[in-house]
Amino acid sequence: MRPQTSNTPARPHVVILGGGFAGLQAARALARDPVDVTVIDRRNHHLFQPLLYQVATAALNPGDIATPIRSVLRDQRNARTLLAEATHIDLGARVVQLHDGAIGYDYLVVATGATHSYLGQDQWAAVAPGLKTVEDALDMRRRILLAFEDAERAEDVQTRSALLTFVVVGAGPTGVELAGALAEIGRFTLARDFRSFDPRGLRVVLVEGGNRLLTAMSETLSAAAERQLTDLGVEVRKSAKVTDIDEHGVTFADGSRLASRTVLWAAGVQASPLGVCLSAPTDRAGRVHVEPDLSLAGHPEAFVAGDLMHAPAGEGIVPGVAPAAIQSGQHVALAIRARMAGRPTAPFVYRDKGSLATIGRAAAVGSLAGFEVRGFLAWWLWWIVHIAYLIGFRNRLSVMIGWAWQYFAFRRGARLITGRALRRSPSLPPGRPSQS
Amino acid sequence: MRPQTSNTPARPHVVILGGGFAGLQAARALARDPVDVTVIDRRNHHLFQPLLYQVATAALNPGDIATPIRSVLRDQRNARTLLAEATHIDLGARVVQLHDGAIGYDYLVVATGATHSYLGQDQWAAVAPGLKTVEDALDMRRRILLAFEDAERAEDVQTRSALLTFVVVGAGPTGVELAGALAEIGRFTLARDFRSFDPRGLRVVLVEGGNRLLTAMSETLSAAAERQLTDLGVEVRKSAKVTDIDEHGVTFADGSRLASRTVLWAAGVQASPLGVCLSAPTDRAGRVHVEPDLSLAGHPEAFVAGDLMHAPAGEGIVPGVAPAAIQSGQHVALAIRARMAGRPTAPFVYRDKGSLATIGRAAAVGSLAGFEVRGFLAWWLWWIVHIAYLIGFRNRLSVMIGWAWQYFAFRRGARLITGRALRRSPSLPPGRPSQS
Repeated sequence: MRPQTSNTPARPHVVILGGGFAGLQAARALARDPVDVTVIDRRNHHLFQPLLYQVATAALNPGDIATPIRSVLRDQRNARTLLAEATHIDLGARVVQLHDGAIGYDYLVVATGATHSYLGQDQWAAVAPGLKTVEDALDMRRRILLAFEDAERAEDVQTRSALLTFVVVGAGPTGVELAGALAEIGRFTLARDFRSFDPRGLRVVLVEGGNRLLTAMSETLSAAAERQLTDLGVEVRKSAKVTDIDEHGVTFADGSRLASRTVLWAAGVQASPLGVCLSAPTDRAGRVHVEPDLSLAGHPEAFVAGDLMHAPAGEGIVPGVAPAAIQSGQHVALAIRARMAGRPTAPFVYRDKGSLATIGRAAAVGSLAGFEVRGFLAWWLWWIVHIAYLIGFRNRLSVMIGWAWQYFAFRRGARLITGRALRRSPSLPPGRPSQS
Repeated sequence: MRPQTSNTPARPHVVILGGGFAGLQAARALARDPVDVTVIDRRNHHLFQPLLYQVATAALNPGDIATPIRSVLRDQRNARTLLAEATHIDLGARVVQLHDGAIGYDYLVVATGATHSYLGQDQWAAVAPGLKTVEDALDMRRRILLAFEDAERAEDVQTRSALLTFVVVGAGPTGVELAGALAEIGRFTLARDFRSFDPRGLRVVLVEGGNRLLTAMSETLSAAAERQLTDLGVEVRKSAKVTDIDEHGVTFADGSRLASRTVLWAAGVQASPLGVCLSAPTDRAGRVHVEPDLSLAGHPEAFVAGDLMHAPAGEGIVPGVAPAAIQSGQHVALAIRARMAGRPTAPFVYRDKGSLATIGRAAAVGSLAGFEVRGFLAWWLWWIVHIAYLIGFRNRLSVMIGWAWQYFAFRRGARLITGRALRRSPSLPPGRPSQS
């Protein structure tokens, strides 16, 4: 059976672009409504991005944190999933152009999210990968593990120390979590794996342009996070502006230079390019300004949800976090239901359930329901909250095992280098592992 | 601490090329000997190849069946691991050339294995991928899952049926296991996932040039395997010679044509190219003829183990299976120990512990300790044997979960399409999923 579409007037056709938290939530909330839902994503999987850094740091398999969108919606008979890339939206004609076709809609939900931004320095992308997709995470993992492999074979001290220096740019949740995980890889995971150097000598530098970490959280929590990172051996550099990045290291505004073969990018936000098709003003990050009910001005049938939307919340805007995406997806479903019934729509109100950032194996900082938490308790809360969010029983179980294993054995379960396994770096000494 | 090498005469330097079953077994067997062991592999991981088809068919994550060589040897203090590619072997100088250096040895173990061969038709590699590496498996998985995605969007019946026809060439264990798993994907896993077609209509064709399946096993077992596959809905074509493969299907010697968008290659064996450096005769598949003790004629310090060796066994040769690789690695370690002690070496004797091939979710055929088994019992035996072989607790557990999950829920846990997520196939109709 194939859902009906816009030219069969009986059931309105709801097209949802993006199978992230916002899009999937909107789709599921419409399960019992007399509509045909089509979820379109250029990936076949829903990705649990809050845990992506665990894939990048070889603690989890990609399969642990991703679920096929198709199987999430398998039993929702009024929904279908299409693997396709939306290239343009014609609000007037109510048609979405795909990379190889087109699809009409009666109601549209644009939830194509955001990615990281290099703040105008796109050439940095090649040397300082960001973390948004499974491929990003596997690329980061490969770079991190290869740096250790190359260090095992490096002959001179300078090369080795550059290979064992990891720089994380940006001290938001992702940057903090990456830095913490990296510090532990050296301290525990790989401690006995190498022969020609001691991985505990690894250096992790967390670089932040602002004057504190986790600016979305309170100053107390920022300070706690910094303390916990320092305890793990992470060097925290605040108010440090990066002016250049190349394959040999990072240059700062004060002219100083940090030699590193592995720079990881965890800064900047750039909304999905589809936002520009929506005939609405966008903010500096490309997020789309929406009406109070998350629809587009002049287009009551089109909505924006998730990281792509620019919606006021208190004195700021709704943050680009999973709970906000889920809430907005839910709200859009209600708004569509109201429109179909000819009822007025309610304005979207974001409820901040709090946020948590984990720091290494056994610490975290955050606020939940108004209470500030830190340390081991926070870590357990973080753990429970994230597991609870995960879609799909198997993933939950397998992630729990991954973590338990990593926690009790200080080992990383998924230390696979895939893709280009060997890096032929000209700047490495002619690797002569033995004196033969 | 760094192991000493050939120019420190105190401890002989044993260089092992290849971190597969043979190489790792040899390395571990030398753990307590007064030698320095260097294991060299171009991959950072040991791969449990007997389960690779489960990754290709989206039942397992790559991380479930691969373990970093470095962590397997982490506690063996006389061993180190190098991520490097051996490009040439100079038996006279006792030096192995690496892609970016060289390493000398006193004793050499060449265990670089074999891959599949296209029997002279290398152009088929692009349209009919084989299954030897993690990347191969992920590529196969992507092709299989994308065929279903494209079928969901295909408009005409012919295109859809070609997309839903999967051809497996070669009915050895890999081909049989692939065919069985594919048949079940359609019957159970994806049964409710699609809207515009019924995945149970999927067609799996297993093509074998010979007149029976699993030629390494008895005729009774071949017949049993064929029956079990047929019960799963697999079409078995024996004595069918493939003369051409392109992206639209397969052509047979009798001129008949089979339209298929997904052809998987499970035939042919081609030994590692390093074999030609070993100044010993090789067989048609490139396997190296060895002395009874697995050393090279005229080079008592150099040995060949695993799939790369051509060693007589009964009226045939030692088969290219994991148990044989493990036994040969063990034997080579003993032979090196004997050489060091000036004792004569024993000839290698392969002990056939039997073999098993699984067929789908709950059947298998094989022989163990002289007994022939089939059906559900065989499947459990297969399951236990393979779990028992797996290196690394976490992998075992996670594989068990993957299987349990797949077995009880008929679902595939690892249905991720990574890499190029969208296939822009010109031969697909301009995908217009709706009549808009």
